[in-house]
Amino acid sequence: MPGMEKLHLEDVLEDSPQTRNLLRVFENDAFALKKYTLGLHNCCQRIMKAQNELCAATQALSQQLRDYEIQTFPLEPEDSILTTTLKQFSSYLDDVSSIQQVLSAQYSETMMYPMSRFIQADLEEVSTLCEMFQIATTEHESAIKNYMKLPKKKENDRQRMEYNEELYGMRKKFHQTGLHYYSSLNALQYKRKCSLLEPILGYMHAQRAFFQMGQDAVCKKEIEEFLNNINASVQGVQKELQQDTKKTVDLIDTLEQQSVQHYHAEPNPEMPYIPPNTQLAQKGGYLFIRSKQLIATRWDRCFFFTQGGNLMCQPKDEVAGSLSLDLNEPGVLAEPYDTDDRRFVFHVSSPKLRKSVVLQAENERERDEWICTINNIVRESGYVKSKSPLQQQANKERTPSTTSSTKESGGSSPDMANVNSSASLGSPHAPKPAPATNDMLLSDVPIQFDLQPLIDDITDVTPNLQGPPKL
Amino acid sequence: MPGMEKLHLEDVLEDSPQTRNLLRVFENDAFALKKYTLGLHNCCQRIMKAQNELCAATQALSQQLRDYEIQTFPLEPEDSILTTTLKQFSSYLDDVSSIQQVLSAQYSETMMYPMSRFIQADLEEVSTLCEMFQIATTEHESAIKNYMKLPKKKENDRQRMEYNEELYGMRKKFHQTGLHYYSSLNALQYKRKCSLLEPILGYMHAQRAFFQMGQDAVCKKEIEEFLNNINASVQGVQKELQQDTKKTVDLIDTLEQQSVQHYHAEPNPEMPYIPPNTQLAQKGGYLFIRSKQLIATRWDRCFFFTQGGNLMCQPKDEVAGSLSLDLNEPGVLAEPYDTDDRRFVFHVSSPKLRKSVVLQAENERERDEWICTINNIVRESGYVKSKSPLQQQANKERTPSTTSSTKESGGSSPDMANVNSSASLGSPHAPKPAPATNDMLLSDVPIQFDLQPLIDDITDVTPNLQGPPKL
Repeated sequence: MPGMEKLHLEDVLEDSPQTRNLLRVFENDAFALKKYTLGLHNCCQRIMKAQNELCAATQALSQQLRDYEIQTFPLEPEDSILTTTLKQFSSYLDDVSSIQQVLSAQYSETMMYPMSRFIQADLEEVSTLCEMFQIATTEHESAIKNYMKLPKKKENDRQRMEYNEELYGMRKKFHQTGLHYYSSLNALQYKRKCSLLEPILGYMHAQRAFFQMGQDAVCKKEIEEFLNNINASVQGVQKELQQDTKKTVDLIDTLEQQSVQHYHAEPNPEMPYIPPNTQLAQKGGYLFIRSKQLIATRWDRCFFFTQGGNLMCQPKDEVAGSLSLDLNEPGVLAEPYDTDDRRFVFHVSSPKLRKSVVLQAENERERDEWICTINNIVRESGYVKSKSPLQQQANKERTPSTTSSTKESGGSSPDMANVNSSASLGSPHAPKPAPATNDMLLSDVPIQFDLQPLIDDITDVTPNLQGPPKL
Repeated sequence: MPGMEKLHLEDVLEDSPQTRNLLRVFENDAFALKKYTLGLHNCCQRIMKAQNELCAATQALSQQLRDYEIQTFPLEPEDSILTTTLKQFSSYLDDVSSIQQVLSAQYSETMMYPMSRFIQADLEEVSTLCEMFQIATTEHESAIKNYMKLPKKKENDRQRMEYNEELYGMRKKFHQTGLHYYSSLNALQYKRKCSLLEPILGYMHAQRAFFQMGQDAVCKKEIEEFLNNINASVQGVQKELQQDTKKTVDLIDTLEQQSVQHYHAEPNPEMPYIPPNTQLAQKGGYLFIRSKQLIATRWDRCFFFTQGGNLMCQPKDEVAGSLSLDLNEPGVLAEPYDTDDRRFVFHVSSPKLRKSVVLQAENERERDEWICTINNIVRESGYVKSKSPLQQQANKERTPSTTSSTKESGGSSPDMANVNSSASLGSPHAPKPAPATNDMLLSDVPIQFDLQPLIDDITDVTPNLQGPPKL
């Protein structure tokens, strides 16, 4: 290495000011190099840390995608295409994360290790030798001062010999320490040329391997096709959503227009009068029910419906209805009733059970329809006869408040009706369930979504309830 | 989308318990989906953050490599191959960092943006509508309760109309809010299928582009060749270092063996006697100098050397020597001296200057050599005559304490000697500098490394001092 400045080991013993000055230049250089290398080490460690964090973050994302499956989404069936797709993405992310991990490992091996070794072995050695050299210098100077003070008279030979030997030891130690210190400072001039480059070479090699592995792993045809498929699916869903949104906007418009007449409880006198339908065999809707508590009287809003010859009652937020009155008993009668100075009140009384239910409808037509329907059911011994589809249609048009329930029940597949029917078996308040074999009969009964057991044991029942799911 | 469960907008107005139950299923699903999506968002944000940090860390490393140039390393010349190499690495790191930055930007655009939009626009909309729907429900129920309490008597028509109108408004608001709430819950079932996949698709596309760009940028032939070159250089330096280390170990052995006789100040009587060299025309080495302070006397160790007919003195850690005594004056004499009960003392007195320097050597031979040398210089009127190389060689062998200085000065290029000579001009204590044209003369003068100005203005002088640097 021509032209490289060097400390001359031959000058250590003489220790002249010139040598000291040159030494100071080397020491300052070593100090600056150590400072610079520690800065470089911090930079590399920062990269290492960020790379480790990136790797962990990728793993966490992959785990989150896999976890979609174990979330209890009430509406997402097991093994949906979405679940499968997310799992597939998760496995690709695992591949990316593995490659990131390899990069981390290579950083650690080819970048961090040589640099740490340089700092700990070489730069620290220089610092240690520097301290040792300072100590040896001080000790040598102290020994020589003592020696120089020796008096001229020859009597004290023992002390002379002692001081001369002490000086011998200290000068030898100083010389040996200095030789090693100087040579380690000289070696540092070679080492700076490898030890600063080695970690960066390691970084570059690792980075190149990383990009190569990454391309091999995620740029292959198979993944491209998968991504194109998923992309097409997503666009398909977005198109469907657009169409659905358009339909929904229209439907909302229609429903709002149709519903204007139902916003008033007492019909607007300007609207055409709709007479009550006296032929209904079933009915559902909100009524207020009177209950007596000690001296006070309560009126609570509750959803009432007829089912299997029973008058059922279900508060809005309950999952199942309960029996309000058995209409099969002989002598049951519904009729207008006057109480509490309220309008549109009627009561249903069962002489045999000595029970009477006092109810309030929103308007006269509603009250009359309820009275007729209940009396119709009592007359038919609580069982609804099959009607022709034409008659059903007529009923629907005249009873808008139950339209949707009927429609929903009509639109259900036989499978679904069975599920609902058997689910209602679990409800303690649903007496005399209709036989499941009579589909016509079932389709006229309002669906009772007894959803609690479905949620508790969703993996068994959900697929049946929701039908075959598609992405 | 067949098989997908939907809320029926037709059921909003009736608001039956069945509808409420189904609504609750959708609400729970939306809640779970929001929770899951926020978790996914956190994962993606973590990746984003790690990627940004990695990018910043790479930039910092690149900057650190560039900063090598602006460090003031006393021993590293400007534009050394190491500096250039680190700069080249820095530019490759900039490329890597740019690609990492592109990846960050793509993450932000194709992963974070769709997810944030889904959370802020869609999931938050559902939450807001949920609250609005609850408020509308409460208001509607309150309005209907008030309406139902109206008394039967017809007198209070105004209140009846008022309550009926109030109910109209609340029911309309409830219906409209419900329609939007239901339809946004339905839409969420489509959106989950795009909005969870879109960010991951974005991630995969960005990752693929990243690996592709990375490979294009750092896997090219040019970089491979560069890395191979640097690798070869580093190995070359390591080989040189090994050879140098071997040589150094041998040199240390030799020096330690040769120096044993110099560790004692008073020569070991068993060692062969070396007589003082009485023919020396110059000499350098440590002596103790006496100084009187009020009533006390100090003896300080100081490096003395002869230069241009002067006796120079330089404390060990000073950067330049100062004049101790001008030996050119007539009548100057060095001779043994007895004082302070110390051994090996001599003094140099100048009658004309009325000045006397009292010095102490380590042993008799040293003292005698100093006395002879000074008297030789005085005799030659302070100027050293040119000697034949043979004579110089003889001198060197007999004066081991100055060997290295002489050798060093002899090994310097004329350029370097000039630099040193002109540098010593800056020192106020260096009188009568020898003319720079006489190379023979200069090569016999011990080099005075006046390094202070070099360090202050290193960029100008260092290259000359250190010669042409090679890696």
